[in-house]
Amino acid sequence: MSEFEIGRLNKIRTSHRASYDREAVFGVLAEGMVAHVGFIAGDRPIVVPMIYGRDGDRLYLHGAKAARFSKVTGQGVPVCFTLTLSDGIVVARSAFHCSMNYRSVVIHGHAQLVTDEEEAEKALALITDHLIPGRWAESRPMTRKELRSTAVLSLDIEAASLKLRSGPPVDDEEDYDLPIWAGVVPLQQSAGTPKPDDRVPDGVEIPASVLTPRI
Amino acid sequence: MSEFEIGRLNKIRTSHRASYDREAVFGVLAEGMVAHVGFIAGDRPIVVPMIYGRDGDRLYLHGAKAARFSKVTGQGVPVCFTLTLSDGIVVARSAFHCSMNYRSVVIHGHAQLVTDEEEAEKALALITDHLIPGRWAESRPMTRKELRSTAVLSLDIEAASLKLRSGPPVDDEEDYDLPIWAGVVPLQQSAGTPKPDDRVPDGVEIPASVLTPRI
Repeated sequence: MSEFEIGRLNKIRTSHRASYDREAVFGVLAEGMVAHVGFIAGDRPIVVPMIYGRDGDRLYLHGAKAARFSKVTGQGVPVCFTLTLSDGIVVARSAFHCSMNYRSVVIHGHAQLVTDEEEAEKALALITDHLIPGRWAESRPMTRKELRSTAVLSLDIEAASLKLRSGPPVDDEEDYDLPIWAGVVPLQQSAGTPKPDDRVPDGVEIPASVLTPRI
Repeated sequence: MSEFEIGRLNKIRTSHRASYDREAVFGVLAEGMVAHVGFIAGDRPIVVPMIYGRDGDRLYLHGAKAARFSKVTGQGVPVCFTLTLSDGIVVARSAFHCSMNYRSVVIHGHAQLVTDEEEAEKALALITDHLIPGRWAESRPMTRKELRSTAVLSLDIEAASLKLRSGPPVDDEEDYDLPIWAGVVPLQQSAGTPKPDDRVPDGVEIPASVLTPRI
């Protein structure tokens, strides 16, 4: 299916800003790095930043086994996974029409603790390689002890949507005659020069995975 | 008080990464642009991206009056406001120690609909000027109709914390001898050249507010 089904959980009110296209949603996930994941603890919503990996319609998250996030979400509670890319500041003639250009994916599901060690290790490879493509294979392999201290959560996509704004400001027709500058300030996340730590042995070159970050 | 009180809602388990310093929390809010705000709708957590303004210990958010966020949170429900700055990718020798450098503020409170028109207008000015300092005064003034179609929410800080990681990777002692590159890839959000829209009248110069964005 090329589109996510539209339902109560993911229907966007402003339909001209909505997309349910699977490849568009996955494209934003591929570009993003830090999601904000919400869950309910007692009577409170909690939102925490998380890195992630994806395998088809399944997302993977991870945390320390002792962390509240892992303890709560490992029990199959509902989770909202939101990822936003900020593309620009929309400077309109009126403050009312000032806005942001952005792409924001919202995914609903129920997190599950991954108990199969093979799947957990595959998930951690996906998460690592999402941050730095190719890094998993370059790294010192994960030990069983490390694997066991890590909570890996899977999140099957129950509902997903992409909300976006792009393009110039849209002002009220009569405001276009005003002597006020209007337009867009583009924003982007960029990577600087990689900085080796002080203990990299002489002769160890920086690998391509790090030299050419994906952003 | 220079520190937020530590309680059940904001205590961070990994204490070496925690700060409750008021100026440090406000500094991250000053630098950030898009927060992720969580609330509970029915039995589901919902997380949406939002811009914001701050006045002392009160945050302001806004949305269309018809939006679900405004309808739900205007009723004084608990809200979690999270803002994350991604400072770098931490490339360790082991995948287990790969990480991010970041600063993440989490604020808990109960949102309230602002019904006083004067406070609502002041809040919208704070939100606009947080994105583009000085823009409110340059813009075509807000009309009463615009003001009335906008839901302005206030969020008094009940609990706040800052969680952060900085610096090089921390690997297991025996891994430092491995011939594996390790270090940090710095990340930053940057602003490109402002792009005027097609209908800016001849002779209208770009204002300093837009030319020198705060990021």
